[in-house]
Amino acid sequence: MDLATLDTSQHPYLPEAAHTLFRAKTAKSLSFEQIAQHIGRNEVATAAIFYGQAKASPQDVQKLANLLSIPEEPLVQQLGGFPDRGRSVEMPPREPLIYRLYEIVQNYGYAYKAVLNEKFGDGIMSAISFSTKVEKETDTDGNNWAVITLRGKWLPFSRF
Amino acid sequence: MDLATLDTSQHPYLPEAAHTLFRAKTAKSLSFEQIAQHIGRNEVATAAIFYGQAKASPQDVQKLANLLSIPEEPLVQQLGGFPDRGRSVEMPPREPLIYRLYEIVQNYGYAYKAVLNEKFGDGIMSAISFSTKVEKETDTDGNNWAVITLRGKWLPFSRF
Amino acid sequence: MDLATLDTSQHPYLPEAAHTLFRAKTAKSLSFEQIAQHIGRNEVATAAIFYGQAKASPQDVQKLANLLSIPEEPLVQQLGGFPDRGRSVEMPPREPLIYRLYEIVQNYGYAYKAVLNEKFGDGIMSAISFSTKVEKETDTDGNNWAVITLRGKWLPFSRF
Amino acid sequence: MDLATLDTSQHPYLPEAAHTLFRAKTAKSLSFEQIAQHIGRNEVATAAIFYGQAKASPQDVQKLANLLSIPEEPLVQQLGGFPDRGRSVEMPPREPLIYRLYEIVQNYGYAYKAVLNEKFGDGIMSAISFSTKVEKETDTDGNNWAVITLRGKWLPFSRF
Amino acid sequence: MDLATLDTSQHPYLPEAAHTLFRAKTAKSLSFEQIAQHIGRNEVATAAIFYGQAKASPQDVQKLANLLSIPEEPLVQQLGGFPDRGRSVEMPPREPLIYRLYEIVQNYGYAYKAVLNEKFGDGIMSAISFSTKVEKETDTDGNNWAVITLRGKWLPFSRF
Amino acid sequence: MDLATLDTSQHPYLPEAAHTLFRAKTAKSLSFEQIAQHIGRNEVATAAIFYGQAKASPQDVQKLANLLSIPEEPLVQQLGGFPDRGRSVEMPPREPLIYRLYEIVQNYGYAYKAVLNEKFGDGIMSAISFSTKVEKETDTDGNNWAVITLRGKWLPFSRF
Amino acid sequence: MDLATLDTSQHPYLPEAAHTLFRAKTAKSLSFEQIAQHIGRNEVATAAIFYGQAKASPQDVQKLANLLSIPEEPLVQQLGGFPDRGRSVEMPPREPLIYRLYEIVQNYGYAYKAVLNEKFGDGIMSAISFSTKVEKETDTDGNNWAVITLRGKWLPFSRF
Amino acid sequence: MDLATLDTSQHPYLPEAAHTLFRAKTAKSLSFEQIAQHIGRNEVATAAIFYGQAKASPQDVQKLANLLSIPEEPLVQQLGGFPDRGRSVEMPPREPLIYRLYEIVQNYGYAYKAVLNEKFGDGIMSAISFSTKVEKETDTDGNNWAVITLRGKWLPFSRF
Amino acid sequence: MDLATLDTSQHPYLPEAAHTLFRAKTAKSLSFEQIAQHIGRNEVATAAIFYGQAKASPQDVQKLANLLSIPEEPLVQQLGGFPDRGRSVEMPPREPLIYRLYEIVQNYGYAYKAVLNEKFGDGIMSAISFSTKVEKETDTDGNNWAVITLRGKWLPFSRF
Amino acid sequence: MDLATLDTSQHPYLPEAAHTLFRAKTAKSLSFEQIAQHIGRNEVATAAIFYGQAKASPQDVQKLANLLSIPEEPLVQQLGGFPDRGRSVEMPPREPLIYRLYEIVQNYGYAYKAVLNEKFGDGIMSAISFSTKVEKETDTDGNNWAVITLRGKWLPFSRF
Repeated sequence: MDLATLDTSQHPYLPEAAHTLFRAKTAKSLSFEQIAQHIGRNEVATAAIFYGQAKASPQDVQKLANLLSIPEEPLVQQLGGFPDRGRSVEMPPREPLIYRLYEIVQNYGYAYKAVLNEKFGDGIMSAISFSTKVEKETDTDGNNWAVITLRGKWLPFSRF
Repeated sequence: MDLATLDTSQHPYLPEAAHTLFRAKTAKSLSFEQIAQHIGRNEVATAAIFYGQAKASPQDVQKLANLLSIPEEPLVQQLGGFPDRGRSVEMPPREPLIYRLYEIVQNYGYAYKAVLNEKFGDGIMSAISFSTKVEKETDTDGNNWAVITLRGKWLPFSRF
Repeated sequence: MDLATLDTSQHPYLPEAAHTLFRAKTAKSLSFEQIAQHIGRNEVATAAIFYGQAKASPQDVQKLANLLSIPEEPLVQQLGGFPDRGRSVEMPPREPLIYRLYEIVQNYGYAYKAVLNEKFGDGIMSAISFSTKVEKETDTDGNNWAVITLRGKWLPFSRF
Repeated sequence: MDLATLDTSQHPYLPEAAHTLFRAKTAKSLSFEQIAQHIGRNEVATAAIFYGQAKASPQDVQKLANLLSIPEEPLVQQLGGFPDRGRSVEMPPREPLIYRLYEIVQNYGYAYKAVLNEKFGDGIMSAISFSTKVEKETDTDGNNWAVITLRGKWLPFSRF
Repeated sequence: MDLATLDTSQHPYLPEAAHTLFRAKTAKSLSFEQIAQHIGRNEVATAAIFYGQAKASPQDVQKLANLLSIPEEPLVQQLGGFPDRGRSVEMPPREPLIYRLYEIVQNYGYAYKAVLNEKFGDGIMSAISFSTKVEKETDTDGNNWAVITLRGKWLPFSRF
Repeated sequence: MDLATLDTSQHPYLPEAAHTLFRAKTAKSLSFEQIAQHIGRNEVATAAIFYGQAKASPQDVQKLANLLSIPEEPLVQQLGGFPDRGRSVEMPPREPLIYRLYEIVQNYGYAYKAVLNEKFGDGIMSAISFSTKVEKETDTDGNNWAVITLRGKWLPFSRF
Repeated sequence: MDLATLDTSQHPYLPEAAHTLFRAKTAKSLSFEQIAQHIGRNEVATAAIFYGQAKASPQDVQKLANLLSIPEEPLVQQLGGFPDRGRSVEMPPREPLIYRLYEIVQNYGYAYKAVLNEKFGDGIMSAISFSTKVEKETDTDGNNWAVITLRGKWLPFSRF
Repeated sequence: MDLATLDTSQHPYLPEAAHTLFRAKTAKSLSFEQIAQHIGRNEVATAAIFYGQAKASPQDVQKLANLLSIPEEPLVQQLGGFPDRGRSVEMPPREPLIYRLYEIVQNYGYAYKAVLNEKFGDGIMSAISFSTKVEKETDTDGNNWAVITLRGKWLPFSRF
Repeated sequence: MDLATLDTSQHPYLPEAAHTLFRAKTAKSLSFEQIAQHIGRNEVATAAIFYGQAKASPQDVQKLANLLSIPEEPLVQQLGGFPDRGRSVEMPPREPLIYRLYEIVQNYGYAYKAVLNEKFGDGIMSAISFSTKVEKETDTDGNNWAVITLRGKWLPFSRF
Repeated sequence: MDLATLDTSQHPYLPEAAHTLFRAKTAKSLSFEQIAQHIGRNEVATAAIFYGQAKASPQDVQKLANLLSIPEEPLVQQLGGFPDRGRSVEMPPREPLIYRLYEIVQNYGYAYKAVLNEKFGDGIMSAISFSTKVEKETDTDGNNWAVITLRGKWLPFSRF
């Protein structure tokens, strides 16, 4: 199985931690599934930590340092602040896999809005009080299907 | 319960069918859930037909005409071609609900890619051999959660 | 005192209700302060309803119809759906007053983020569970000061 | 409590002083609240100095040098000119916290304008003769609320 | 002498008043110099009223109605609100004359900033407490020179 | 009095000469007014040379080298070519001071055009056969006013 | 020979005169070469008048009215103001023929600048004191070549 | 006479050869006219080679190496591939001289198209089977005029 | 089999002929394959005529008028000028089918360039001396494959 | 024959492998045709591997290392992850050769869609289950023609 890596010449604006973590992941030949199991978090959240898009708790940092054999002190330093989110993907995305997700928003955006509004009223699905996961299904013809679940708290617009 | 409507002055570039269908939906006071049940399709797909983002089969058209009391002939005409997708949402989306979905792609795009690549290899999740659904959950504290599921066939890049 | 009006040739993409409401407001010579008092909502929220950026409750609609002498039936129709927010201001704003607000975000954005993160942890100030108000102060030199308050629920990023 | 840090690989266009100040802040484990108290300025203004968005007076520089144990001479040098504002946030903001503020301008921009014009006449709220602050409130259900106040001098358009 | 006119097919987003005023100006064959003298305002301000970029006082409206033989009532209506500025020029300007002004800002922007900062300190030249005028000079070789003067109040950044 | 400086990390695309000149200006603690007097040019033109937006004559270079104690040979080298103008300001400008000038063009662009066309005929005010200056005025209330004068040759469109 | 026409549904922002003139040109089956000869101007200038990009003198208007059998009075009206240039081509041009010209600027822009600067010094080739023409050449192999000549006055940057 | 130079800090994306060639040109104090004569090509083409916008033949490379005293081997290496055109000018051009050429395309684009189509039929003027030159004219009043000639093969659209 | 139609509310900037032709095509229930056979042209070229992207010869117009029962005179009028190409697709394309073609250019652009340059030298594949066709293949598993062929004349860059 | 090379100063965002591979290709003087034959893949796919746009199998890596005399270990490292596609071409492409392909999509996009939809129904041609090739043809007049074939699996939109 091939593992996701990070080519630093292609992602110059990611935080320093991204480079530290990916370098160690490659050296240890670990998948995000393995790392996620070790730190007790979801795979997508784990990968998001690697890309500087999610915050690692002190325990996460400790476990990552252990698993990946990274000296803990500098990792605490690098992961100590608050993620500056939104810097990994340039929109519209040029990467074909990520573009497909963007296209789903572009094509079904108003359909989601109409259905959600009728089900929940005037508001939004939070992207903050939010979790997501990725699953793999194989149908009877042997085709693989990716299933992405987005689960967000419904926030009604305040009346004021 | 309020129903989703279409204000034609805000969506001048939608197909004529969008205006026909939404006008009838409002007149009949039907929700997308009710319409979807009647035509035997998913709610999101049904709303997508209304926004000109999905194709209606001849049977769908017939059932829509019946349920919504629209003369069948002109509706067949309006829905007869192939959807010109991508014209309902201007990107980046300015609508807060749709923006949240866009933000999920922006923040988690590379995390999804890394996890999907490790699970499936080099390829993409199709947005064409694809289905999606919206569900409502209520937790024990009475909070509502929106759950959106995206399910797409995995397409490996061809070797050539 | 001059009153805010709406020139329909300058805002072609606002919902039909915007035109109906502003026309009646001008005919009645009412300020947003007066209308807000009548419907029991904040001035900014009231103006936001006029621009199609906030939802009016059935009672709001009824009171607006009464105060502004608009036939209730069509107004219910026009205000019945869910606001399609984000269509009134084109970003970056070209209007000098609105640009100043945009500039505040541009200049102080990361300062707000740093201070908020240190005070509340990793999360965001909601723009949905949110209210805002405008006040006028006059200092001892006779200068007027505008005070805008933004109050939003703090949403911590979910751990998953 | 976590502290805001600056990852220089993510903000290459900030002034040299930003890197100097944040490095020292992290080394000293000081919050903006503590630094602001020490130099006698508002927290947001203090953070804005760190991001190169506000000017520090000679006294501010001296106090910052003392508190943060930075040699005064080079800091005077780095903070001696005039801020080149607007370089910290790329608009539209991709950071979710900052985006929410942008969205408030996008959604309520014209509502603010209408209400301000009716209250003050033809003019703008200055973003220069301006101050702002951030406060934390906790409601009886234990929810936290962020309150941002914007206070700007009203400038009427000159008649000429 | 040719007079400035307005081709409504080229400026669909100007306020209704623009069309009313320019039509009358053309019918009366009046220059902005003549109109400005009649209402006692600067030529540029007068033209700005015509383009919906400046506010006319009740007296201005009355005088304009008289001079241009426009019924006063509808003109009061059309000019009664607050200008929605910034809608006449699309930036970057494609019109060669306006582009030259834009180019001056592009080329000399930082030079102006450096000189103004050294002369006045940290702040801006207001574009609101502001007036401007256009003059014509002819040199001894018979060449014409346009002289545009911009005069704005200096606003220092508030310390907070 | 504070002096304008250049933070090279914020202006990576300025010519090498900009860095040389600003470094020396800071070391010598000279204002643009002083430098301009020494080389016999206008302050704005002098600052424009520093930002790589105007050409220095051989005499200018010699005088700059003397005043600023820069070895003449490399300065001649750095200033020997032709300015590659337009690289100092990114448009639309994010710097508040420069934005105000941009806003003046945006708001009054067509008003200037109308008045200039009526005064001079079909043509433009040159930004090349052009000079500009900045002056400071203080009114009787002690308020400071910045006055910027733009003077350009009128170029009529050729008939062909 | 086919003649250039104007499809008004594709050029909604051209001035009214464009529609009047092209309609008459089509009705009369006249080429720009024929019209240019009649009014004594260059073909490109003549076409530019039709697209609202050049000013017609009173004599031009009279001759156009005669040749094209357009009532003179309304044509004087439509062509009476000053061209609002830059509205016919959206940049970057999508039309292949116009794109090729744009590409020449993109590819050879700096080469032209270097050669012109060395030949003329620091300045620009005016696009206002400017004329252009189109010629057809046929080589000995029967291939056709288009030759476009641009001739502009050299304007040196003023020293100030 | 001043010579065109290249400031590498302003053109980081030009090919390595650009830096090599310009450095040598400056050291040798040669104009493009002189270099062009030496290699037997047009001045614009020669400058285009320097900016990485045109291909040098093996003989060109040899002659350039000789004239400019550059070791031949590395120059062959640097100029050996195929030009990656379009990287020297960012569009729209901010450089005033290059902008004037862009403006000519913007203003006269459709006029050129109309005249060319009537003269040649449906097709384009090639920018590939293409040559260009720059000439200097001085009129009887001592004014200088720049004349740029564009000569491209006419390519009719294929019928298929 | 469903037929391609044109919804005029979605394509307001297409030429008048597009609306005429598509309306007739729908009324006659003809596929592009049938129309192409009748006029003796390729299907893609035929569809391109319908979208205003290719020129119809007088014979094509006559045949189209006959087959589609359109009065010949107005069709000659509508198709008489020269196509104003590039107005049917807004780039980047939002339509998923067209986006896939755009993505192929984005992903393989430099690979095509490298291979073509090595095979043909320095030049381009013409998009004008060009034809294209679409074919359908079905493999032994019953899967359908679309095959698009692009065939363009190789144009070497002229040496000058 | 000249060979395609990579100038690293022009492509800073390509993966490290691109630089390694191109450097070796140049040193070995190998064409993509030769390399493709050696690894048993198509030329375009081979070049795409060099530009980081296609994945190399372990065997491909081994063969590339052998042919190009690159140490295998670091190459395995550099090519081990998943391509981050879309980073080689900036859209719209400025390179003339690549622009021509973009222009084909812009001009014929809807024509392709119409023809494909009529031939295959509602769906897209996959750019993932996809192969492409480049061929050279020479006609009887000695003209060269480039033929690019795109072959993608047809994916019908799922009904849901």
